[in-house]
Amino acid sequence: MAGKAGTILVTGAGIDPSLLEPLLDLGFDLRRPRQPLSENRLVHELKGAVAYLHGGEERATARALESAAHTLKVVAFLGVGYENFIDVARADELGIVVTNTPGAATDSVAEFTVGQIFLANRRIFEHLGNRLPDWTSPEELPHNLRRRKIGIVGMGSIGTRIAEMLTMAFGAEVAYYSRTPKKDVEERLGITFLPLHELAENSDILVVMVPLTEKTNPMIDAGVLARLRPGTILVNTARPAVVDPGALHLCMAEGRVSLAVFDGFYGPDCASANRLLADFGHRLLVTGHIASHTREAMDRMVCQAVASIENVLEHGADKHAVGNRAGRVPGVPRNNS
Amino acid sequence: MAGKAGTILVTGAGIDPSLLEPLLDLGFDLRRPRQPLSENRLVHELKGAVAYLHGGEERATARALESAAHTLKVVAFLGVGYENFIDVARADELGIVVTNTPGAATDSVAEFTVGQIFLANRRIFEHLGNRLPDWTSPEELPHNLRRRKIGIVGMGSIGTRIAEMLTMAFGAEVAYYSRTPKKDVEERLGITFLPLHELAENSDILVVMVPLTEKTNPMIDAGVLARLRPGTILVNTARPAVVDPGALHLCMAEGRVSLAVFDGFYGPDCASANRLLADFGHRLLVTGHIASHTREAMDRMVCQAVASIENVLEHGADKHAVGNRAGRVPGVPRNNS
Repeated sequence: MAGKAGTILVTGAGIDPSLLEPLLDLGFDLRRPRQPLSENRLVHELKGAVAYLHGGEERATARALESAAHTLKVVAFLGVGYENFIDVARADELGIVVTNTPGAATDSVAEFTVGQIFLANRRIFEHLGNRLPDWTSPEELPHNLRRRKIGIVGMGSIGTRIAEMLTMAFGAEVAYYSRTPKKDVEERLGITFLPLHELAENSDILVVMVPLTEKTNPMIDAGVLARLRPGTILVNTARPAVVDPGALHLCMAEGRVSLAVFDGFYGPDCASANRLLADFGHRLLVTGHIASHTREAMDRMVCQAVASIENVLEHGADKHAVGNRAGRVPGVPRNNS
Repeated sequence: MAGKAGTILVTGAGIDPSLLEPLLDLGFDLRRPRQPLSENRLVHELKGAVAYLHGGEERATARALESAAHTLKVVAFLGVGYENFIDVARADELGIVVTNTPGAATDSVAEFTVGQIFLANRRIFEHLGNRLPDWTSPEELPHNLRRRKIGIVGMGSIGTRIAEMLTMAFGAEVAYYSRTPKKDVEERLGITFLPLHELAENSDILVVMVPLTEKTNPMIDAGVLARLRPGTILVNTARPAVVDPGALHLCMAEGRVSLAVFDGFYGPDCASANRLLADFGHRLLVTGHIASHTREAMDRMVCQAVASIENVLEHGADKHAVGNRAGRVPGVPRNNS
């Protein structure tokens, strides 16, 4: 039975229930189905919901959003990169506000990325479970991180945090590409701006940390990948589609990319991604989109999402709205924001 | 056929041959057998050798050293923790100088340790190969490193480097125990000294980085382990015997230790270590003594070991001698050093 104020669908397994209590106090009913949700199941669970806290791996497709359009006012996405998970264009048309949780997971994602850089650089995964070292020649030995040239594509808050960790902790040589050069970061950390193709050509490890947009889908394309030197490690802890899977397959076949790290992988219907797994699975380090999944990040994200749901239901707007509602703050007309 | 100057046995797969050229130039013959070496095989390979560069995982036992005592003048160990690999007491009695390579692998071991801390803290190894996150409850989520209390046992050069990385890059809260408190490191990094048992009781992650000596075999014993709180991660990138395997088994059974990291494991004849593997293998992250194995560290170690061999063969002493030759520098009587 629906609460007086309406029903809110909450998905995802990592959410601390106590952080949802403000919504219960406001008279909302919470619906927390089992994961994962197919599109049909999502349509079913969205029935009658006024809000939807998206913390799972399901896709809020146009069809799912349309099915709930007469009640649904807001989809609050847990995380930053909502593009793969929510059809925001359709939500905009339907008048459903979509929000995300920028900033909450910066440390969590940066730590995860640096950890994966380490894992890939020292090839730890190949050594786990061995009682003895199994090098057969000196060429197999990895290099210290402080002797690696690391290129970072994207110098937003997470990219900057990654650069801080790599320079301050490991003394690595870091260069970066970003749409807008960041002079302050360059000076503070002693890192260098390079055009994207030059960055690719000068990196032992290329780290990708850009949002998925029309312009970045894919950003790391055949042209960029062709500039990599043999043996480069590619670390993509952004959304997978930022890297062209077909071009990556070619590069891995050529040995230009020795190892590729992904957090979250292309959909199971992506043929070239499946070829990647089949042919080079042993050279892929894939995790399931968990970079932002720490207790601290999750709690901050949930608090922000709960506040966004409250704002939209009460005021019709929120400062973390994305899509064509971006920039509209409760009580402030858009042109003043 | 032996070179004019004599034969040098060189073991280990990671050695760049070009770094051994100074020895060839001096007229030495190099003998580089296949790895690994049994005791019988080592006895065979040591026959007639004047020096022995120990870069493998074999044990230079009393018997092996005795068999070569009439020719062998020096065993140069690649690395710091020679105690498990060379019977130094017997070498001393036989007048064979043993040297090691302090300092060469500080960065390499510290980077490796910090990387393993990440890997264990975020439980990456459980997620590799998953396309989707597989949390089933919020309690399973890991914490950001900067919210972890990390205790470091041993504040020598490697321990200090680990503390630098953890505090400067990740903002983790670090405390430490060391025989001699290090006021300068405390002030510089903002870390706190604690007695060993208190450190154990106050750490989410306990990192062990002490040499293996009579006093530290084992240092992390039942008394220390009993003070750990449930769920502690134990990271031992020092020699395995620094941790009591039987007491660790009990702690893992109780859940006091959730995960234990080792680089190099107890010998295959250690019954309680085998019980550890059998019962808690899925909660052990074991690698084969590779923390110091990077190209840069290995090259520095080989250069230092080659210099030590030259010094001992020419002057009968070297500044990196250990055992009862420690402190004797070429040309300087011991009581002045």
